[in-house]
Amino acid sequence: MINKLVDKIKKTNAPIVVGLDPMMSYVPKQITEKAFQDFGETLEGVAEAIWQYNKGIIDATYDLIPAVKPQIAMYEQFGIPGMTAFDKTVKYAKEKDLVVIGDVKRGDIGSTSAAYATAHLGKVQVGSKTYSLFDEDFATVNPYLGTDGIKPFVDVCKDEKKGLFILVKTSNPSSGEFQDRLIEGRPLYEWVGEQVAKWGEDHMGDDYSYIGAVVGATYPEMGKVLRKIMPKSYILVPGYGAQGGTAEGLRPYFNEDGLGAIVNSSRGIICAYQQEKYAGFGAENYADASRQAVLDMIEDIQSIF
Amino acid sequence: MINKLVDKIKKTNAPIVVGLDPMMSYVPKQITEKAFQDFGETLEGVAEAIWQYNKGIIDATYDLIPAVKPQIAMYEQFGIPGMTAFDKTVKYAKEKDLVVIGDVKRGDIGSTSAAYATAHLGKVQVGSKTYSLFDEDFATVNPYLGTDGIKPFVDVCKDEKKGLFILVKTSNPSSGEFQDRLIEGRPLYEWVGEQVAKWGEDHMGDDYSYIGAVVGATYPEMGKVLRKIMPKSYILVPGYGAQGGTAEGLRPYFNEDGLGAIVNSSRGIICAYQQEKYAGFGAENYADASRQAVLDMIEDIQSIF
Repeated sequence: MINKLVDKIKKTNAPIVVGLDPMMSYVPKQITEKAFQDFGETLEGVAEAIWQYNKGIIDATYDLIPAVKPQIAMYEQFGIPGMTAFDKTVKYAKEKDLVVIGDVKRGDIGSTSAAYATAHLGKVQVGSKTYSLFDEDFATVNPYLGTDGIKPFVDVCKDEKKGLFILVKTSNPSSGEFQDRLIEGRPLYEWVGEQVAKWGEDHMGDDYSYIGAVVGATYPEMGKVLRKIMPKSYILVPGYGAQGGTAEGLRPYFNEDGLGAIVNSSRGIICAYQQEKYAGFGAENYADASRQAVLDMIEDIQSIF
Repeated sequence: MINKLVDKIKKTNAPIVVGLDPMMSYVPKQITEKAFQDFGETLEGVAEAIWQYNKGIIDATYDLIPAVKPQIAMYEQFGIPGMTAFDKTVKYAKEKDLVVIGDVKRGDIGSTSAAYATAHLGKVQVGSKTYSLFDEDFATVNPYLGTDGIKPFVDVCKDEKKGLFILVKTSNPSSGEFQDRLIEGRPLYEWVGEQVAKWGEDHMGDDYSYIGAVVGATYPEMGKVLRKIMPKSYILVPGYGAQGGTAEGLRPYFNEDGLGAIVNSSRGIICAYQQEKYAGFGAENYADASRQAVLDMIEDIQSIF
């Protein structure tokens, strides 16, 4: 799957991923109204609205981009119907041949991580039958529990040829509270980065490892160091746009080959129509606004090479 | 909810929580066969089996214990039907007046943590209506992202009078890989523990804070230090029994008042019938075996006071 991701990035010339993180306030009124008409003001109604909204964005952008990254929390907050919308979104994106990064940030002790890995990347045995579950291509994982919390994910990735992005340095303002603390003179995130590189050696694709890292766009100096520590790990870079990361700041996250990083934008793409710049599209044409925002983001990022 | 938890611990004289972490291999054959008969070898069939299995354990133990802790990964691995079984289990346990600790170990940047907090502890607005979602009483949370990943959970906890257990020192063998690393001469878990105490000051119950910590039973020396660092935080202690923690080792996790800690056992209780000690019950009476295992665990833990 890392090979597919790299191939698609090369073909689209777009090292970007669209974050499908729907909030109700992002969904255009005509979609919500229709869904509430059909399902009432229920969780099923919201789930339908979110799904239709996502479908519109996927349909309008799938030929331009290599991947989408649904943030599961935004679905989980609508309970079981929300999880069903997540499931439909993942399956639909895969039908459109997009690589799907499940932004689930799971992580636990060994046996529990194994269950999460099954849920998001693997298959489960039920009597004589086998089922795929949420079946994303990649999942994000939290490293706080150390190797035995990560290894079950890596094992499932090997079986399924899937991958991980492990949190190293996150994009949020207080990420430094623990991640930047110095251990033998070097910040914790560097130690985590070193482990990511080590975990990744064990599951290599053609040029890059199946085991990547999350490093926020908001900390380019740290991105530069981490790029060197994990030369074979793809870096998933959140925090571009709405969170304050800029295109110039992204250069250090890429290798000399122009590869090695994939930049996420969520709000900046999926509710582009709410920005002044794309207001001309109107809520009716929100998906076209998202397409234009993708084109602009690609141009912006290509400007750094 | 922390007051309710403390009250129930006092009333039952049982500072224990039963971990409802069902694996298919734990579920007695008669339950699985019946479920597969009704639903086929499907995810719905597994979900039904898990739910019936949990219901039996809850019915047999709810009068002895203050709380249950379903581990969501064990349900998530069976997809949407699995999540539905989780949901039913939580609701049923609450009907039986048990405190429910959702072992979800979520944690993300601010806006995403807010969505997780809504999902597990809060309510969501849908048009003019308000819905509860998974609606546990407590949730476990991962601290790697720092304060702005925790604060949205605390905010929802304040609104809903609910609580958290934040991972400080986990029970797994490689937990020390990052958690034990020294920062200014003190391990990371102590720094996290200090923050837990600080976050907790902001949301106090009568004697204890709504914001607790997870500290594994497998590290009693560390438990002793953390008890002092977080005097007002309830400590959720996994790792007793199957993971190797012993009753004598548990004393340091409690305060002088005999309170301040709640010890989890999962496998040791829920599949007691598979242990030699309780084999006499037979698979048919698995729930009675679980009841006996709870009684034995209570006696074992009371022996340390």
